Amino acid sequence: MSAPSASNTFRAIDVIRKKRDGLELLPAEIQYLVRGYSQGEIPDYQMSAWLMASVLRGLSRVETAVLTDAMLHSGEVLDLSDLPAKKVDKHSTGGVGDKTSLILAPVAAVGGLAVPMISGRGLGHTGGTLDKLESIPGFNVNLSVARFRKVLEECGCAMIGQTAEIAPADRKLYALRDVTGTVESPALICASIMSKKLAEGIDALVLDVKTGSGAFMKQVDDAAHLAELMVETGERMGKKMVALITDMDQPLGQAVGNSLEVEECIQILRGEGPEDLRELCLELSAWMFYLGGVSASIPQGREKAEQIIRSGQALEKFREMTAMQGGDVGVIDNPKRLPQARFRTDVLSPAAGYVATIQCEQVGTASVVLGGGRERKEDSVDPAVGIVLHKKIGDKVVGGEPLCTIHYNFEARLASAKQLLEASYQIADAPPAKRPMVHRVIQGEKN
Amino acid sequence: MSAPSASNTFRAIDVIRKKRDGLELLPAEIQYLVRGYSQGEIPDYQMSAWLMASVLRGLSRVETAVLTDAMLHSGEVLDLSDLPAKKVDKHSTGGVGDKTSLILAPVAAVGGLAVPMISGRGLGHTGGTLDKLESIPGFNVNLSVARFRKVLEECGCAMIGQTAEIAPADRKLYALRDVTGTVESPALICASIMSKKLAEGIDALVLDVKTGSGAFMKQVDDAAHLAELMVETGERMGKKMVALITDMDQPLGQAVGNSLEVEECIQILRGEGPEDLRELCLELSAWMFYLGGVSASIPQGREKAEQIIRSGQALEKFREMTAMQGGDVGVIDNPKRLPQARFRTDVLSPAAGYVATIQCEQVGTASVVLGGGRERKEDSVDPAVGIVLHKKIGDKVVGGEPLCTIHYNFEARLASAKQLLEASYQIADAPPAKRPMVHRVIQGEKN
Repeated sequence: MSAPSASNTFRAIDVIRKKRDGLELLPAEIQYLVRGYSQGEIPDYQMSAWLMASVLRGLSRVETAVLTDAMLHSGEVLDLSDLPAKKVDKHSTGGVGDKTSLILAPVAAVGGLAVPMISGRGLGHTGGTLDKLESIPGFNVNLSVARFRKVLEECGCAMIGQTAEIAPADRKLYALRDVTGTVESPALICASIMSKKLAEGIDALVLDVKTGSGAFMKQVDDAAHLAELMVETGERMGKKMVALITDMDQPLGQAVGNSLEVEECIQILRGEGPEDLRELCLELSAWMFYLGGVSASIPQGREKAEQIIRSGQALEKFREMTAMQGGDVGVIDNPKRLPQARFRTDVLSPAAGYVATIQCEQVGTASVVLGGGRERKEDSVDPAVGIVLHKKIGDKVVGGEPLCTIHYNFEARLASAKQLLEASYQIADAPPAKRPMVHRVIQGEKN
Repeated sequence: MSAPSASNTFRAIDVIRKKRDGLELLPAEIQYLVRGYSQGEIPDYQMSAWLMASVLRGLSRVETAVLTDAMLHSGEVLDLSDLPAKKVDKHSTGGVGDKTSLILAPVAAVGGLAVPMISGRGLGHTGGTLDKLESIPGFNVNLSVARFRKVLEECGCAMIGQTAEIAPADRKLYALRDVTGTVESPALICASIMSKKLAEGIDALVLDVKTGSGAFMKQVDDAAHLAELMVETGERMGKKMVALITDMDQPLGQAVGNSLEVEECIQILRGEGPEDLRELCLELSAWMFYLGGVSASIPQGREKAEQIIRSGQALEKFREMTAMQGGDVGVIDNPKRLPQARFRTDVLSPAAGYVATIQCEQVGTASVVLGGGRERKEDSVDPAVGIVLHKKIGDKVVGGEPLCTIHYNFEARLASAKQLLEASYQIADAPPAKRPMVHRVIQGEKN
């Protein structure tokens, strides 16, 4: 009943009530909330009530785009317009053994794109690009913006962590969502991801939205809903967008764990390595090339990516970036220079048959238990530990054959990791139906 | 994924998520939340997320009862078991001109009950018992618990404000709900009201749940839902319960404003005053007597209340309580000793016909505008100002006849109050259908 103060035409309580009652907010109301919260004028307890109302009532596509834009403009937006190449990035919603960024960045850079990749760390059962890169001795992911720009300009790709200047509203909001049960909202996830990615000053973005037992979105439809939201939000902001709904019903490739995954990336860049990982990298590269305007079609883009890998140029580009970011390039020719775990042990198949399922989230959790991931943001990770899968879904096994090998440093952590892995494999008499790598492609209208 | 700490088997985040997902909480989870929040271990931002999830997902009847019990036991529960009389109270959800407490307490005390009444202040368009009592010069509503007990023992009724010891969890929670858009939940309203009322150490409670244009619950069904929840919650805690859904589609009685309402109460206690107010007081008294076991039926209870008023004993009891609480008993024989407004002006009927509606909330707001109520908790009230209604719904009027009289102290506040009152009366050619005073009665099963 009290009149709004002259300095401020909105009140947080009114915006909270409006969303609680399921009404659509005005752009100015959302902007008021984000600005007020960033500046400390709206307290945590009002923001968390609004977040919960938004989780349960939902945000419309327009509200989501406005929220994303407000979060994006809470901080610095890189201006890379002076670089002649098209700026294209890829973002994954996170999975187990999901290491494509380390392969895509050099491949895309060789193909004529600029890849300004700002990545995150692992949390929960999923790994993070920064942790993987840091398993390369000396690799520095904390470049200044000036140095990031320099590496990007000279090398065509650069990979760093989020800086304090990029979307500070997201950092503050995410920390609050994390402790108030308000992470699980497609609209809030979209705004969080897109506000950071759009701050990179990109022209186009390829989204790798994971689905299956190792993904945050277990169901294809949920993943597709999030994907559509992100594609639409990016398009509203003038970006070329595509989202691939890809399979995370088992770990990607064979390696799970930081050093082990870097080694596998080097294999792929050499034209070797597991087929599923190679396949996904070619598909994502093709889309990056297509959206970036350097290929006329997806098949052409694939062909280009294959050729870049075959020629050895991608591996050399990875070497160049590693060198420019202070990493030990010796690991590229001798991956055993990466941190190695002291012990190994195999998990054996209890029966003969076919691998029917691999509970993917449990494999990720096993890696966390070994010390390879984080339960809390403050935790440090052990780069050496992890799991190498010898058998994947559909593979034939005989009783007593190794399903996977655990790389570990501490005996005390082995038992529960082993138990998780044993429980995650299910052996059946017949092979299961094959799941595709790419479930759906959701394209923006501007492509 | 992190293990619960040894000292604490629950985590706030898990309880928030569970309610967000629409699941029923365990009693121990609710107790953990209330205790943790009271003790400052659970921060405001987690509690407000849980409150919003509870508003939107709802709380079951069992959850509501457990929440009420946890809030009740966050503080002191009066033990009045040494008083031989049955302890019975009445609680109203709040309305305009709702002054029954001042009449019911002395009537019930004369009838052999003990009435340990802990009341609130007015907020928004509704008045509060404490503000009304304080318009009697010297009346002290801030008695110590010892003094409260003494007045109750000697007089049979005592009326005070909430103490710091009573349901402190409710005070903290209510302040948070007030700023986070989480007031409007039947379960949370129930827990807030019942935790305070049950702390009075009562045997039975009569609830007066208001419905209509001047009530928080505008619809009879919403009021009935809240009433059922409160009756069931009280019953689970071993109390005799009844809820009367009563009409608040127009102000109760003629007087709105603190001194004016006290004067009207004295009229009723003299066997005079407006019929609707008298009728409701008799009905509520009857239920208090019936639940307290001093009448065998409602008609007997009504008869008993009528006789108590007719005999003058109720007025004498009010005098006795006023004296024991430090108030000027001179006001009882000469109500003009109550604070009087300096000016009066009439609102005239614009046409001839019948009063069709009185927008009851607007009348309450007009009283607030005059200074008779609070917009914010910190505001002080002017006891002298208010409105006396000469015409109520269904009354015949001629053009230019006074509909009501405004009692005011400041010219500057008159115009908008007058405008509200003019707009609140609607005159029609034919009288409207009569609304009953009591819409429904919701009885506990133990009565």
